Amino acid sequence: MRKNLKAKAYMYPLPVLIVGTYDENGVPDAMNAAWGTICDTAQVALVLSASHKTVKNLLKTQAFTVGVADASNVVAADFVGVVSANTMPDKLEKTGWHLQKSEFVNAPIIQELPLVLECKLVSYDTDTEICIGEVVNVSVDEKILDEKGKVDLTRFDPICYDCSGHGYYKLGEKVGNAFSDGKKLNV
Amino acid sequence: MRKNLKAKAYMYPLPVLIVGTYDENGVPDAMNAAWGTICDTAQVALVLSASHKTVKNLLKTQAFTVGVADASNVVAADFVGVVSANTMPDKLEKTGWHLQKSEFVNAPIIQELPLVLECKLVSYDTDTEICIGEVVNVSVDEKILDEKGKVDLTRFDPICYDCSGHGYYKLGEKVGNAFSDGKKLNV
Repeated sequence: MRKNLKAKAYMYPLPVLIVGTYDENGVPDAMNAAWGTICDTAQVALVLSASHKTVKNLLKTQAFTVGVADASNVVAADFVGVVSANTMPDKLEKTGWHLQKSEFVNAPIIQELPLVLECKLVSYDTDTEICIGEVVNVSVDEKILDEKGKVDLTRFDPICYDCSGHGYYKLGEKVGNAFSDGKKLNV
Repeated sequence: MRKNLKAKAYMYPLPVLIVGTYDENGVPDAMNAAWGTICDTAQVALVLSASHKTVKNLLKTQAFTVGVADASNVVAADFVGVVSANTMPDKLEKTGWHLQKSEFVNAPIIQELPLVLECKLVSYDTDTEICIGEVVNVSVDEKILDEKGKVDLTRFDPICYDCSGHGYYKLGEKVGNAFSDGKKLNV
């Protein structure tokens, strides 16, 4: 039996993305964004309200990083979403995170995050608040790579955000293979 | 030790979204899309190549549905991503899915998917290929709701797509609470 819940934007899962920027004086900031996805083979799209310090920063520097939050960084990842740099400019000091400037773009890499996309700003649409970035490099901690140099989800625990219950979840059991399982029906 | 993987759009997790449409004759189609997110309190954004039958359909009908694929629908969900309705117009017949027209928009609800967003087309940008939809209703199977009528992730198994290894995963252990855990650092 189906039920109507009215108009809600429910999507499962959502990622937990830590967007890193510098302001015009090189002061770093980071925020937590769940509304983001891939939009081309080397592009990402984030939906970021113009009021965020992050947006003010990336419009000035034309650059940002996107770190994928993992289970070992839940508390700090949530913290940068709870507190705004508009009111607490030094908020990153409370996270314990160590920052290093990207080799490729004018934005900080958070060393504790195992996978970070380094992006050049392509566009920011003030109507939709969609920010598109060109990924110029992916910086990873070697500990999440397998012997062939590929990201290995048995060594990396990205977290998922539940937009309704507001929990953070690890990935669980593998239940299938894309571009493969469906072929069984193609007979 | 960090390593540079060059330019790649890696994001974890990605959802597995089944986009349902009708063509101008009422023939249903569905495709599998991993590049999608929320973009407002009742809006979703999907990145959909203009070549898809789905895009041709939704531009005509101004409507689409977005079903969240779950573990019990992995094979059919993958199948609709493997085969195009441009070459196999009756592909949905092979899924075994049962369709019902939405009460609110001119698009089909796949009854086997426990959570389906019913959307009116807001815009389709031919440059970015970003499709924005206004969610006018969320149709859920009552079995995924708790006693208070909320979506309960102990009763619903949405799957995640691994953009690098191409696996599908269930959600696992809960590791935190959003807008809450981070407050510990705000002292």
